[in-house]
Amino acid sequence: MKEREKERAVVLVSGGMDSLVTLAIANEKYGQDNIFMLHLNYGQRTESKELQCFKEIVKHYKIPKSRRKIIDMSFLKEIGGSSLTDKKMKVTPFKGDKRKSKSIIPSSYVPFRNTIILSLAVAYAEVICAKKIYIGAVYEDSSGYPDCRPKYYKAINKVIQEGTKFTGIEVLTPVIYLSKDKIIAEGIRLKAPFKLSWSCYKSEKIACGVCDSCVLRLRAFDRAGVLDPIQYMKN
Amino acid sequence: MKEREKERAVVLVSGGMDSLVTLAIANEKYGQDNIFMLHLNYGQRTESKELQCFKEIVKHYKIPKSRRKIIDMSFLKEIGGSSLTDKKMKVTPFKGDKRKSKSIIPSSYVPFRNTIILSLAVAYAEVICAKKIYIGAVYEDSSGYPDCRPKYYKAINKVIQEGTKFTGIEVLTPVIYLSKDKIIAEGIRLKAPFKLSWSCYKSEKIACGVCDSCVLRLRAFDRAGVLDPIQYMKN
Repeated sequence: MKEREKERAVVLVSGGMDSLVTLAIANEKYGQDNIFMLHLNYGQRTESKELQCFKEIVKHYKIPKSRRKIIDMSFLKEIGGSSLTDKKMKVTPFKGDKRKSKSIIPSSYVPFRNTIILSLAVAYAEVICAKKIYIGAVYEDSSGYPDCRPKYYKAINKVIQEGTKFTGIEVLTPVIYLSKDKIIAEGIRLKAPFKLSWSCYKSEKIACGVCDSCVLRLRAFDRAGVLDPIQYMKN
Repeated sequence: MKEREKERAVVLVSGGMDSLVTLAIANEKYGQDNIFMLHLNYGQRTESKELQCFKEIVKHYKIPKSRRKIIDMSFLKEIGGSSLTDKKMKVTPFKGDKRKSKSIIPSSYVPFRNTIILSLAVAYAEVICAKKIYIGAVYEDSSGYPDCRPKYYKAINKVIQEGTKFTGIEVLTPVIYLSKDKIIAEGIRLKAPFKLSWSCYKSEKIACGVCDSCVLRLRAFDRAGVLDPIQYMKN
């Protein structure tokens, strides 16, 4: 048990609630001293708000400078093809009916985003000798994002095994099979500071409450029977 | 046949001779008008020389601005762990006996480098609707670089299949099974401009002739029975 406690884990923390709960889970397992937080600032609209959330979460979990890293991914803007990174594209509003939107790829899609992020996380993990990488992917989201599916993570772990010096680094997705309300319940159990997380795609000050991400978040808090501690615009 | 000719291909061009020959192969197959050149400037020592080579190769193949991209990867320096990106680390000299060095990972190793590069290439390919990505990986090099092995590319293609909106993008490695001298022979056949390629790890002006990369290059030209058109330091 002592050996396990000494193992290091990299946690990808975007500032959203899924990655926050993922961090809380890793924190419970490995202890605060073995957590390395990684934030990818990939030039998206809510960039500064998410970064601000990341920094608040860092403070909350008392992660020192030596165990956190922010990588500027703003060059992704150049590649384009997504409303999250391309300000000329319009954010598609959520239609309400989840089944209807099942086959539609949201305009917030960044091509191959999670692989770009994970490959950097693997490089970081290798340098600091961490064996685990935690990412807050959720299967429920996979209608829009193909790289949130469990079989994608199986494939990425195979690539890591083949493509690193020493095998042993593994990507873990502890909330992948949880519904959004179960993620909230788990976060509540672990005292995750939801008030420091951010989900809105449209606003950086007060959450809009109407974009895909806000609607999913609000519905999940509602189902979990918990009040979302962040503020929303009155529509 | 016409359909195939219309297909687009992204070619990763570092400025080295393997990627130059890979470009020549893709160029023969898809035609100059369907080639998109991608250069990753990842903050390595020979950065400006390689970039210069890339630009010369671009000119040689007459690839317009709309079909080439340079991505600045200098943030990799921050992650560290490699002599190519970390100037404080010493470049390990080549020991001469290839069998001896088989199990040694060279200090020029960048953790998970090819996966980082390929994930960006996939994003680019998706945006420009290319179906193929060409990379000049060589199996012979795989003693040092685990991500040069064929089974690594099998794994990465599985990840692409799982992680992209539409399947169909594929990474191709046309020189992977070739020895260095066979790569040169293929390049000669395709009139690849070897004088515009660069391999030296140590110098940016005149190739040192003694680093791993120079030794491999010189030996290959020697075996191919061709004179290397670039200049070397007199040792």
